[in-house]
Amino acid sequence: MKEINAGIIGCGYWGPNLIRNFNDNHHTCLKYACDLNAERVHRIKLRYPHIQTTTDYKDLLRDKDLEAVAIATPVFTHYKLVKEALDAGKHVLVEKPFTATVREAEKLVDLAASKGLVLLVDHTFIYTGAIKKIKDFISAGDLGEMFYFDSVRVNLGLFQHDVNVIWDLAPHDLSIMDFIVGEEPASVVATGASHTPRGLEDVAYVTVKFKNSLIAHFHVNWMSPVKIRKIIIGGSKKMVVFDDLDPAEKIKIYDKGITLSKANEKAVYQSLVQYRIGDMYAPNIDNKEALGLEVAHFADCIKNGTKPLTDGEAGLRVVRILEAADKSLKKDGMKIRL
Amino acid sequence: MKEINAGIIGCGYWGPNLIRNFNDNHHTCLKYACDLNAERVHRIKLRYPHIQTTTDYKDLLRDKDLEAVAIATPVFTHYKLVKEALDAGKHVLVEKPFTATVREAEKLVDLAASKGLVLLVDHTFIYTGAIKKIKDFISAGDLGEMFYFDSVRVNLGLFQHDVNVIWDLAPHDLSIMDFIVGEEPASVVATGASHTPRGLEDVAYVTVKFKNSLIAHFHVNWMSPVKIRKIIIGGSKKMVVFDDLDPAEKIKIYDKGITLSKANEKAVYQSLVQYRIGDMYAPNIDNKEALGLEVAHFADCIKNGTKPLTDGEAGLRVVRILEAADKSLKKDGMKIRL
Amino acid sequence: MKEINAGIIGCGYWGPNLIRNFNDNHHTCLKYACDLNAERVHRIKLRYPHIQTTTDYKDLLRDKDLEAVAIATPVFTHYKLVKEALDAGKHVLVEKPFTATVREAEKLVDLAASKGLVLLVDHTFIYTGAIKKIKDFISAGDLGEMFYFDSVRVNLGLFQHDVNVIWDLAPHDLSIMDFIVGEEPASVVATGASHTPRGLEDVAYVTVKFKNSLIAHFHVNWMSPVKIRKIIIGGSKKMVVFDDLDPAEKIKIYDKGITLSKANEKAVYQSLVQYRIGDMYAPNIDNKEALGLEVAHFADCIKNGTKPLTDGEAGLRVVRILEAADKSLKKDGMKIRL
Amino acid sequence: MKEINAGIIGCGYWGPNLIRNFNDNHHTCLKYACDLNAERVHRIKLRYPHIQTTTDYKDLLRDKDLEAVAIATPVFTHYKLVKEALDAGKHVLVEKPFTATVREAEKLVDLAASKGLVLLVDHTFIYTGAIKKIKDFISAGDLGEMFYFDSVRVNLGLFQHDVNVIWDLAPHDLSIMDFIVGEEPASVVATGASHTPRGLEDVAYVTVKFKNSLIAHFHVNWMSPVKIRKIIIGGSKKMVVFDDLDPAEKIKIYDKGITLSKANEKAVYQSLVQYRIGDMYAPNIDNKEALGLEVAHFADCIKNGTKPLTDGEAGLRVVRILEAADKSLKKDGMKIRL
Repeated sequence: MKEINAGIIGCGYWGPNLIRNFNDNHHTCLKYACDLNAERVHRIKLRYPHIQTTTDYKDLLRDKDLEAVAIATPVFTHYKLVKEALDAGKHVLVEKPFTATVREAEKLVDLAASKGLVLLVDHTFIYTGAIKKIKDFISAGDLGEMFYFDSVRVNLGLFQHDVNVIWDLAPHDLSIMDFIVGEEPASVVATGASHTPRGLEDVAYVTVKFKNSLIAHFHVNWMSPVKIRKIIIGGSKKMVVFDDLDPAEKIKIYDKGITLSKANEKAVYQSLVQYRIGDMYAPNIDNKEALGLEVAHFADCIKNGTKPLTDGEAGLRVVRILEAADKSLKKDGMKIRL
Repeated sequence: MKEINAGIIGCGYWGPNLIRNFNDNHHTCLKYACDLNAERVHRIKLRYPHIQTTTDYKDLLRDKDLEAVAIATPVFTHYKLVKEALDAGKHVLVEKPFTATVREAEKLVDLAASKGLVLLVDHTFIYTGAIKKIKDFISAGDLGEMFYFDSVRVNLGLFQHDVNVIWDLAPHDLSIMDFIVGEEPASVVATGASHTPRGLEDVAYVTVKFKNSLIAHFHVNWMSPVKIRKIIIGGSKKMVVFDDLDPAEKIKIYDKGITLSKANEKAVYQSLVQYRIGDMYAPNIDNKEALGLEVAHFADCIKNGTKPLTDGEAGLRVVRILEAADKSLKKDGMKIRL
Repeated sequence: MKEINAGIIGCGYWGPNLIRNFNDNHHTCLKYACDLNAERVHRIKLRYPHIQTTTDYKDLLRDKDLEAVAIATPVFTHYKLVKEALDAGKHVLVEKPFTATVREAEKLVDLAASKGLVLLVDHTFIYTGAIKKIKDFISAGDLGEMFYFDSVRVNLGLFQHDVNVIWDLAPHDLSIMDFIVGEEPASVVATGASHTPRGLEDVAYVTVKFKNSLIAHFHVNWMSPVKIRKIIIGGSKKMVVFDDLDPAEKIKIYDKGITLSKANEKAVYQSLVQYRIGDMYAPNIDNKEALGLEVAHFADCIKNGTKPLTDGEAGLRVVRILEAADKSLKKDGMKIRL
Repeated sequence: MKEINAGIIGCGYWGPNLIRNFNDNHHTCLKYACDLNAERVHRIKLRYPHIQTTTDYKDLLRDKDLEAVAIATPVFTHYKLVKEALDAGKHVLVEKPFTATVREAEKLVDLAASKGLVLLVDHTFIYTGAIKKIKDFISAGDLGEMFYFDSVRVNLGLFQHDVNVIWDLAPHDLSIMDFIVGEEPASVVATGASHTPRGLEDVAYVTVKFKNSLIAHFHVNWMSPVKIRKIIIGGSKKMVVFDDLDPAEKIKIYDKGITLSKANEKAVYQSLVQYRIGDMYAPNIDNKEALGLEVAHFADCIKNGTKPLTDGEAGLRVVRILEAADKSLKKDGMKIRL
């Protein structure tokens, strides 16, 4: 039953969650856990004595019986590790952001395709019941035309040493936007500031515009005293609030908006805009752990050739926006076309 | 006792609040209420039969016994009405935003000064117990260096016909920032979008930067299904959250932050940034109605020559940012120096 | 148009709200405001110079042109004042709780009936959009069988000198229960404690049982550091939460509950109880001021002979529970049959 | 290092948490997991292949190398299992409520004492940072005299087959009260109702009184559409709110209350009671997992003879109130002296 032998590279913040889910999955047999840090590896061994641990990732790549690796290391290592894993014939699940540059992402997408291997980027939110529910709602046309997508993800965060706050926090929300909007963005404007010697931005604001009047905005902040993880999506028919920190009502759908009387656009403007304040509805959400579903999906892709929901292309689209945001940041908010 | 005869011009959304507070104040005798709309004036008469009502504001300006007027009309009328009132020798309290252009604001500031008349801009928040408490806290040095000022003011709003959402909503928060920061901003970047035929932005994001690393950001939105009025101020020592919709704990002061060990900047970066997660403290706030205190302050300025806390200069500084935001909006986020 | 001359007796905490609403109503002409306290009366005169003020309520009763009085005085004065007003031929609106004893309430109900005068008890909540919405929902059968009615009303309150916390706070929720349940309760159990020299209970808990398995409970507390005003109603089909302090979503209707499989009651119990966790729905609520609607209803009852929604009988039913709660309190929770 | 061999009996709802914590603890070596249900045992084996699993608890008792057992089975089995484990010389950690009757609890307390074995009742909350912080605050005298202890624990719960909602949910809060108040209660009054064929109360209200004017109240409900876990403690100097569902500010300490001027008790009552509305303070809380700390404490008691913080006596005191509540329930709220 546990037919897919797998190994984890990177046992830091997120790795243990991957370990638990690969260990619990009925189709994956977790054979290895690897980290450069021997103490981390030791802690894994204490809880899971049956898993082999190592500080050398090449042990995994050399093992002919190992079919899949999951990589949860700093982003600057992704390209090298994913490339070597693919070259060794392993299917790969890799943390977000996918790569440090658009160029790297493009190469890896091509490599996986040419090898016929599964390449799945860990855009975890796409596997949550909440985001699936929002996607279904919007796909059914119930939102109407999408007007704006506003995201806030702030808290007193884990400062990263190698990337700024946009690369650290925005990939969550950019991947959600990519999944939900389903269109290519047109331009990016970013502003931000740094308050530590390294000069990496710790607070930033990113505006993404699309061809129509849709505007998306991302507020990310490592220095907020409070934790906020909220997305508001405004449409012509309804509006959605996704509050990831609300345990009971993560999604609220509002029958609120404005009604424009288009027949008579020359009339006094006042009469054209009418408020609609209606009911609110909070659908019940499937609470299954997203990462468990993602690991199951990864196994399914390997066994049955299913196309990953969050494939390398999705990872690439997110990196494209991140790279543009960095350029705009460096030029004080100059618009960068995509 | 009620020695200052006053009149109100504009009985729409905000005017009735001015009427109630001028009527209740012990030093002001509310003699007139004026609006172009006869029905509005009639409703005022029903509740306050003792007040004279008129649809012609010149009735007020002609009355030699009238010392002061409060103007709560659309912003495009401010310059003309304030100018005529000052020319007629009346002290003036005028709604925010002060004027439609920087040029107008400058002229009115000069006119009031040359006439020796009180000119007070209705930056109401400055008179709330909450903002006074935050100002005192920051003035005492308890916040440390200010890192960011993040403001959100969104709801399913009253669409304005003549101004966009920045001119409508941001003056509240810009006036708070002006009061609390007490420094001149250096540049403005704004993005936004419109979703109605008139083309006025209904959602917008404004970044204001200062000479040091302080960054301020304003999110304003007329089409939000939920009401949010929140300011987060991050400092090197403490952080403050002002939630105007929290009836019990409007201000929360967090002993949270990061500590940088500056002595050893060449060491591994990781060791330089240390988290500080401490207690939270919500001071008790004076709940007196801000507009009542403002009217009392206006009366004090008239009687005793006190300098207005929110004078024409303050109004002008806010209009300067609004004008720059409009320019940046039109150029897709181009940085506008102030 | 303003055909009903009315006067207010009692200008303390609630009286000014009655004054404002009688003054604004198009059918009532507010002629008098009366209070024993001359300073209170003076403050009313300042805001409403056109209203006659007096410290002698008999001025109102003697005025032949006065048709109606609203009484907002301490409860121990209600019987005497309502009786004299009815004897003088005035229609009466009286604060809750209606009277200090069941006997007094019964006599006043009879007196009003024999005189053919309107007697309306100010159960204000019955006129709110929220309570009307809940009543409609339940009347339509959507709740199913009602299982429990749980109410909490606590805050750092205005200590009353003459009544305990049950008489002060519970009438609100008892009147709501009376309106919504629409059945006679069977018994009352109350516990409580006093922490001040006067010995009046400042925290209390009241259980009200009905003939079926419906249980109602009321938690009232004058010494709570936080304000809570929440009612939860559990039914066999759905459940309702009414949070009067939630400005956006006062009513939430939950499609949650348990499903009992009655066909097979001898099977293992476990299989009989199944959870149903469904969607939540927050209907839009009419936000018109309840007291304004109540005054309009009072005027309608006077003009058109309409039966008051909250008549003396409703007031009497609430007083009956209050009296029983006092008896139970004195006997340490002994069950008092009604 | 992992010197204490331990086994878990009962792998249902809570057992897996015990397993994880015994497995992770550095002093306990988890040797066995046992449950009557073979499927549950199988699931444990999949995640922890190194642990022996069995469906016969006697395997554990017979193993001479096993020093300790943790029992997480239905309450009606506690007496038999704890007794046999103690008789076999094992130290015991047992779920709450300790036993089904006061008599059983007394016998087990005596047996453990006579055998010199550790008997620890799993009153988990006592090991949380939040409850420790409240205990320290009150022990330091900062609350003043305790006036009331009000607890609400409601949600759409797991219906139990063998006990009513008081036995299921109230032990949490009774154990907290027992720990914090530190005095013997004097009497119990309970009311409740059942809405399922089995007749077990699914909603109940319990009042516990002490010799002084302290009143405690517990609202427990299995049929609430919303989850509430809140305790309010009112004192003469300050007041505390413990909201277990608030991830950021579990404890809020309010400098609010009333001040009684005792010198002059014959003066008008009104002047005796003065409100004090001051600041609020939310201390930072240690977030370590309570069950991990409890398991470490259990190991410490075994190794070093430390007296358990939540010993059999504490378990007995809680069972005494539960038994009294059942008696009062059956007599419609009759006061039961303890």
